[in-house]
Amino acid sequence: MAVTYQLIKRCSKTGARVGKLHTPHGTVDTPVFMPVGTQGTVKAMTPEELEALGIQIVLSNTYHLYLRPGHQVVEEAGGLHKFMNWKHPILTDSGGFQIFSMGNLRKLTEEGALFRSHIDGSEHFLSPELAIEIQNSLGSDIAMVLDECPPYPCDYEYLKESLERNNRWAERCIKAHKRKDQALFAIIQGGVYGDLRRESGEALLKMDFPGYALGGLSVGEPKGLMYEVLEHTVPFLPQDKPRYLMGVGTADCLVEGMARGIDMFDCVMPTRIARNGRVMTREGYLTVRNAEYARDHTPLEEDCSCYTCRNYTRAYIRHLIKAGEILGLRLTTLHNLHYLNTLMFQAREAIMEDRFDKFKERFFSYYK
Amino acid sequence: MAVTYQLIKRCSKTGARVGKLHTPHGTVDTPVFMPVGTQGTVKAMTPEELEALGIQIVLSNTYHLYLRPGHQVVEEAGGLHKFMNWKHPILTDSGGFQIFSMGNLRKLTEEGALFRSHIDGSEHFLSPELAIEIQNSLGSDIAMVLDECPPYPCDYEYLKESLERNNRWAERCIKAHKRKDQALFAIIQGGVYGDLRRESGEALLKMDFPGYALGGLSVGEPKGLMYEVLEHTVPFLPQDKPRYLMGVGTADCLVEGMARGIDMFDCVMPTRIARNGRVMTREGYLTVRNAEYARDHTPLEEDCSCYTCRNYTRAYIRHLIKAGEILGLRLTTLHNLHYLNTLMFQAREAIMEDRFDKFKERFFSYYK
Repeated sequence: MAVTYQLIKRCSKTGARVGKLHTPHGTVDTPVFMPVGTQGTVKAMTPEELEALGIQIVLSNTYHLYLRPGHQVVEEAGGLHKFMNWKHPILTDSGGFQIFSMGNLRKLTEEGALFRSHIDGSEHFLSPELAIEIQNSLGSDIAMVLDECPPYPCDYEYLKESLERNNRWAERCIKAHKRKDQALFAIIQGGVYGDLRRESGEALLKMDFPGYALGGLSVGEPKGLMYEVLEHTVPFLPQDKPRYLMGVGTADCLVEGMARGIDMFDCVMPTRIARNGRVMTREGYLTVRNAEYARDHTPLEEDCSCYTCRNYTRAYIRHLIKAGEILGLRLTTLHNLHYLNTLMFQAREAIMEDRFDKFKERFFSYYK
Repeated sequence: MAVTYQLIKRCSKTGARVGKLHTPHGTVDTPVFMPVGTQGTVKAMTPEELEALGIQIVLSNTYHLYLRPGHQVVEEAGGLHKFMNWKHPILTDSGGFQIFSMGNLRKLTEEGALFRSHIDGSEHFLSPELAIEIQNSLGSDIAMVLDECPPYPCDYEYLKESLERNNRWAERCIKAHKRKDQALFAIIQGGVYGDLRRESGEALLKMDFPGYALGGLSVGEPKGLMYEVLEHTVPFLPQDKPRYLMGVGTADCLVEGMARGIDMFDCVMPTRIARNGRVMTREGYLTVRNAEYARDHTPLEEDCSCYTCRNYTRAYIRHLIKAGEILGLRLTTLHNLHYLNTLMFQAREAIMEDRFDKFKERFFSYYK
């Protein structure tokens, strides 16, 4: 079974839309935030806890699983779903983002990227073909093409060369891609330059991928500039394919992204800050680790219905985090994932009822 | 409501017995293994997960909670049960064991013990009165007297002086103890010397505590010597009071302890080794962290019904542990607690059916 996108409803006042992404492991309601399970586990959570939160899809990382435990081990185990006991859809990235974040620890050629493992320093070569082979072994529902993700700011000429190579890599990825039960999504690059985004997008649209991601955003550029890129790029993407904004996970960016027609998001931030004792609330971030909460016997967030807020206080969670206790990280992670998943659920409801503009207004009246 | 022990059944061939320990927060079936929640959480577990495992009582630490977050914070939160969201019985130790394990970081006088915090190096003085005051604030169901826990080996003369001081401290603890809804248990010391154990025991028996612990065992002495001490000491303890062997948690010692009439056990080992990738099985320990399990797609233990074994393989758990993933520690911790709790459940059944001798024989036919 292929991966298909079904458009359900378009907002009449913004670009927001509701859809269903059908995959071999079930259907995902979009817009969706995908928690990141870098090493084949969403840090600190069990699959059942994710299910109970209503999470429908997770992301996992080709780079990490290739290095450890090795994609052959995962394939031998019956694929990533079985290995990690997650019965629902999985998206895997290509490994490119991790490698191109390494700076001079890697070397880029037309053929691919030479890099050193962050675990043992061993040398590896990732080509578009290998990135696809690994993802085929993992058996994710959605694989991503290998691409170079340039930093911000980045020279126009470099970006242009880079995206032309990315286009050639995208064609090689298509050729290497074997699984009929796995969709391969393209990644549009081009930095903050409108014409380069269009050039990248048009080349990739010709290759007719089942989904299109926007890469190279949320890498340091001002948020306003990211929104401009979305406003410029999303309109020339087809309505019948999902659009995925990579690496974005702050609540305000999700809301602004949805308003501009984005269907899928992912980011490590919500779970990473949780492990540092920082939680997401309607009013913005709360650093429960701070001394001011030592004797605060109220929940992380008033009126929150999550397990953490129903059963534990800021004082207890702060104690756990300060004491290095695993339960502390579990409770904050769970709360942040609940917060984001609820936000997306409410956004979908608002779009269905054609009141996403009001939803957005209300969101920003609280959010600091 | 006071804490009472109800003897239900005595084994006709061994010293093993089944009882019920009634506390203000519910009844505990004995013999019981109490998981340790040092800092107000059984590491890596939620209370609901402990409940689902059938765990009826946990232990927490006065020393740790006094230093962080401070017993006043816990009292303000409504007591330790509420603070940590655990509705069932809690036993707190007195802090003595932690302090007397510090070597020359502490100084002992007739009045109490001067020590430095392991967190910030600050100086503190723990007296019998303060140990009780802290436990009163925490509101545990069972509190322990403050005592010196001497090392092994230990000089006879030193041990004698120590246990005489312990007896004086026990009297001071009784005087300081205020809560009617909390039982105060005594701790019998005396090292591996039969006459000292008897001297300590007789003095404490005169004070008529509702429960008696054996301290200073499993501190480095050979197991055979520990069993001898149990054989010598348990017989002069009353049948209508619970006996608690402190700091013991290996499966073989639990079985041998039960055979000698012990009702309660606790130890950090089962949860601590779990976090190092070591699990308990019917056949002994298995270090799932080892390379030999990298491609082992079978559960930790064949025929184990725990969540971990029903859903995950050794290869996946090894991957998680090697990658430093929290889920790895959760899965191994859960398995070890399930293993021990099931062992105790089966032992109680065997005692009730007067076949504990066979149970023990069968246990040792597997256990390596």
